Amino acid sequence: MAKDKAPRRPRAETPKGFRDYFGAEVTERGDMLATIAEVYRAHGFDPLETSAVETVEALGKFLPDVDRPNEGVFAWQDEGGDWLALRYDMTAPLARVAAQFRNDLPAPYRRYTMGPVWRNEKPGPGRFRQFYQCDADTVGAPSVAADAEICGMLSDALEAVGIPRGDYLVRVNNRKVLNGVMEVAGVLDPTNPERFAEARGTVLRAIDKFDKFGEAGVRALMGAGRLDESGDFTKGAGLSDEQADIVMGFMQARRDSGAATAARLRELVGGSALGLEGVGELELIAELLEGQGYGPERILIDPSVVRGLGYYTGPVFEAELTFEILDEKGRKRSFGSVAGGGRYDDLVKRFTGQAVPATGVSIGVDRLLAALRAKGRIGGRAQGPVVVTVMDRERMGDYLALAATLRRAGLRAEVYLGNPKNFGNQLKYADKRESPVAIIQGSDEAARGVVQIKDLVLGAQIAAEATVEEWKSQPAQFEAPIGEMVEKVKAIIARNEAR
Amino acid sequence: MAKDKAPRRPRAETPKGFRDYFGAEVTERGDMLATIAEVYRAHGFDPLETSAVETVEALGKFLPDVDRPNEGVFAWQDEGGDWLALRYDMTAPLARVAAQFRNDLPAPYRRYTMGPVWRNEKPGPGRFRQFYQCDADTVGAPSVAADAEICGMLSDALEAVGIPRGDYLVRVNNRKVLNGVMEVAGVLDPTNPERFAEARGTVLRAIDKFDKFGEAGVRALMGAGRLDESGDFTKGAGLSDEQADIVMGFMQARRDSGAATAARLRELVGGSALGLEGVGELELIAELLEGQGYGPERILIDPSVVRGLGYYTGPVFEAELTFEILDEKGRKRSFGSVAGGGRYDDLVKRFTGQAVPATGVSIGVDRLLAALRAKGRIGGRAQGPVVVTVMDRERMGDYLALAATLRRAGLRAEVYLGNPKNFGNQLKYADKRESPVAIIQGSDEAARGVVQIKDLVLGAQIAAEATVEEWKSQPAQFEAPIGEMVEKVKAIIARNEAR
Repeated sequence: MAKDKAPRRPRAETPKGFRDYFGAEVTERGDMLATIAEVYRAHGFDPLETSAVETVEALGKFLPDVDRPNEGVFAWQDEGGDWLALRYDMTAPLARVAAQFRNDLPAPYRRYTMGPVWRNEKPGPGRFRQFYQCDADTVGAPSVAADAEICGMLSDALEAVGIPRGDYLVRVNNRKVLNGVMEVAGVLDPTNPERFAEARGTVLRAIDKFDKFGEAGVRALMGAGRLDESGDFTKGAGLSDEQADIVMGFMQARRDSGAATAARLRELVGGSALGLEGVGELELIAELLEGQGYGPERILIDPSVVRGLGYYTGPVFEAELTFEILDEKGRKRSFGSVAGGGRYDDLVKRFTGQAVPATGVSIGVDRLLAALRAKGRIGGRAQGPVVVTVMDRERMGDYLALAATLRRAGLRAEVYLGNPKNFGNQLKYADKRESPVAIIQGSDEAARGVVQIKDLVLGAQIAAEATVEEWKSQPAQFEAPIGEMVEKVKAIIARNEAR
Repeated sequence: MAKDKAPRRPRAETPKGFRDYFGAEVTERGDMLATIAEVYRAHGFDPLETSAVETVEALGKFLPDVDRPNEGVFAWQDEGGDWLALRYDMTAPLARVAAQFRNDLPAPYRRYTMGPVWRNEKPGPGRFRQFYQCDADTVGAPSVAADAEICGMLSDALEAVGIPRGDYLVRVNNRKVLNGVMEVAGVLDPTNPERFAEARGTVLRAIDKFDKFGEAGVRALMGAGRLDESGDFTKGAGLSDEQADIVMGFMQARRDSGAATAARLRELVGGSALGLEGVGELELIAELLEGQGYGPERILIDPSVVRGLGYYTGPVFEAELTFEILDEKGRKRSFGSVAGGGRYDDLVKRFTGQAVPATGVSIGVDRLLAALRAKGRIGGRAQGPVVVTVMDRERMGDYLALAATLRRAGLRAEVYLGNPKNFGNQLKYADKRESPVAIIQGSDEAARGVVQIKDLVLGAQIAAEATVEEWKSQPAQFEAPIGEMVEKVKAIIARNEAR
């Protein structure tokens, strides 16, 4: 048989918009997820892991920030003709599970979940098509005590992962108040909720962009429309100046205390029953939280939080990191939002026809990790494993035994498994592994029952800066009996960790 | 605007072949993965998490057990025209990473990874289209010391997760020996490896089915072909009886010790240089492992292990659980394989053109969990959270504070957040949550600074079996000052755990 023509080699590339995570990137995320899970579990939340794949039908058209069906998801047609897709968030699968298992799950059902979600969006710097979310939701609890619990738990979770009090703020608002304001402004008709729905959507998106466009930009979007720098025109909601004034008043209703903010909101919603109900809910949330010690330095009523998602129906919340970091261009900017959520009473109804109250929060794990790294709270140089070098290829069994001895003492240890011929390469390898120590044993040392212990951190330091006297007084390599190897290696590692 | 016609409701269903995991199913898997990761890390393996999505080009046509390209994967076309797919194993992404980052990674590169993989296959009982794998591989180590390390680490990992010595066996073989035997049998021509390739593939698949079809079935598949019970005919490899005898002799070459097995294999491969090289490798692996105390009661040279995958080029290994369980029909059967792997020197070459030696193992996490559950080693009834019941809706703040007090003491605790009107529903809820304790506080108790503590486990027990005297002497509900609540609840939980 003639040999096939060599096929073109495949490209070794992560698909566009995706990335790989190595070493500490993986363990740090795992540690953070475990810490958050512990907080969620303590509050009685149970883990749920749904499949990554859902039917497109079950996902629905609820992709955040996108009103078009199936836009933004990775989808394909199954052999049976069904359309399947990767989940784009954790809320849609929860709604499906809550409907599917409604007879078996406890009611209310508190669940947490963590894992990757996928978005078929244009990737950008720091914006990937697969990222982690860590959500907690309560399904079947109509009381805003459930919302208050979620806000308090979010605050606890942020502190547990290493964001100190004062470096974050959970801001809480209520869609009902906003809708009450809309009613007062004449863009919501309680007897016909569909009326003005498009204009309200535009208003919602406009005020969600307050941070980005400022008051003038938001007013333009609420009115005739906005022309951006590039010349693109975004159609506005068509509100008059008077109507826009009412909405802007709501945005700027934040006062020093929850009670004062609520009082101001009560003025703004005037006679709107829905608005008054929303203000009452905010007051109750503030009262329950303050009763548990979550004061306004941690959780704050703030009418400027609206959250873009169309499906929220009551309280909405957002956790923001308040410290400044330097962006790619070296400019100071505030870190911004790392978590958000709210009450969405209609998602389960899609499946069952029956309204089920639900509320929850989603923590953007990768952003939170980035924040902790930016603050230097994680990402210190971890020490690699001890490397046992290979002097005599035929004594591999001895080297494996040395590594096993170190492991039994609780240390990470490995034998060099590349070509041992060039000893320099073995030390270069240990360097790349960020090893604290290399173990060396030639046949001479083996015969005498000793090993050479090479302190790689001290060695590098001496090579870089030591005088001849120091070099002599601080030997970076020394001999020890095999029986003392563990103890000596541990001492070196402990010294490095103490630095 | 007229109301839209109500659309058909979506079905609340997990897609076919997928499933959801609840509560302890999630935490037990997480704990097992963490334990295995600890063993891998101790051996110097570093974590890697690749994206779930790869280009179809990068995945190649290496789907296990399927020779056709792209068969068996979930794939879709990207907007840019590229075909993307969900990974079907962890080895193909590793090969891609090893090629893509070859200048940055240490060489050899030891990595572990854990996560779901997806197979677009017909689902069956206990056979899902998404399942977990937990792999460790060493890339760039030509020596079989790397294979020995993987086998020893696999043995350590199984014991670490709770499979005691004697309940598992890691069986090791070498493809080179098999190829040597094929050479002797006249179905491999060392000067023209492509010759007889199809027949060898058939032989490989045949002997991999030894457990299923027995000797007669395997002989039929190596010869003219096999007619199964349903009347389907599988074409055979076309070997003569004499050729088949040689292959069967290899399958049955296992002796009491690694040395004896190797001696028998040395006879069988006769003058085949490749076969002799393979036997030498097996001898070295056995020697290195025995030197570290991994005797044949843990790791065994066994020529009947072949592993179906086409890409293995040297040592292959498989971990089998040796205890018996009852199958769905109540019949005893041995649990079988939970992990497997081997040396695959050509996978990275696909990308770079340069051969890179690699070896690794994949643990089938879900099967291993099933085994531990079958043996009763995990899956005991976990206690749920303490439930603080709600007697007075307007004192929600007090109930939240009681739950917070319990949490600060390290206990899981939650407030009932459903409609509190029917107190019986609250206790039913606590029952569904498998709560050990319910806390009850009416306005009378609140005024006196006490709570009622209801021991739900004892309560259920008394209700089921107690006499009137016992009922009186063991009150399942009692009053305690708020200051003693934590201590009393802890005592009840500790007593339950001790049972």
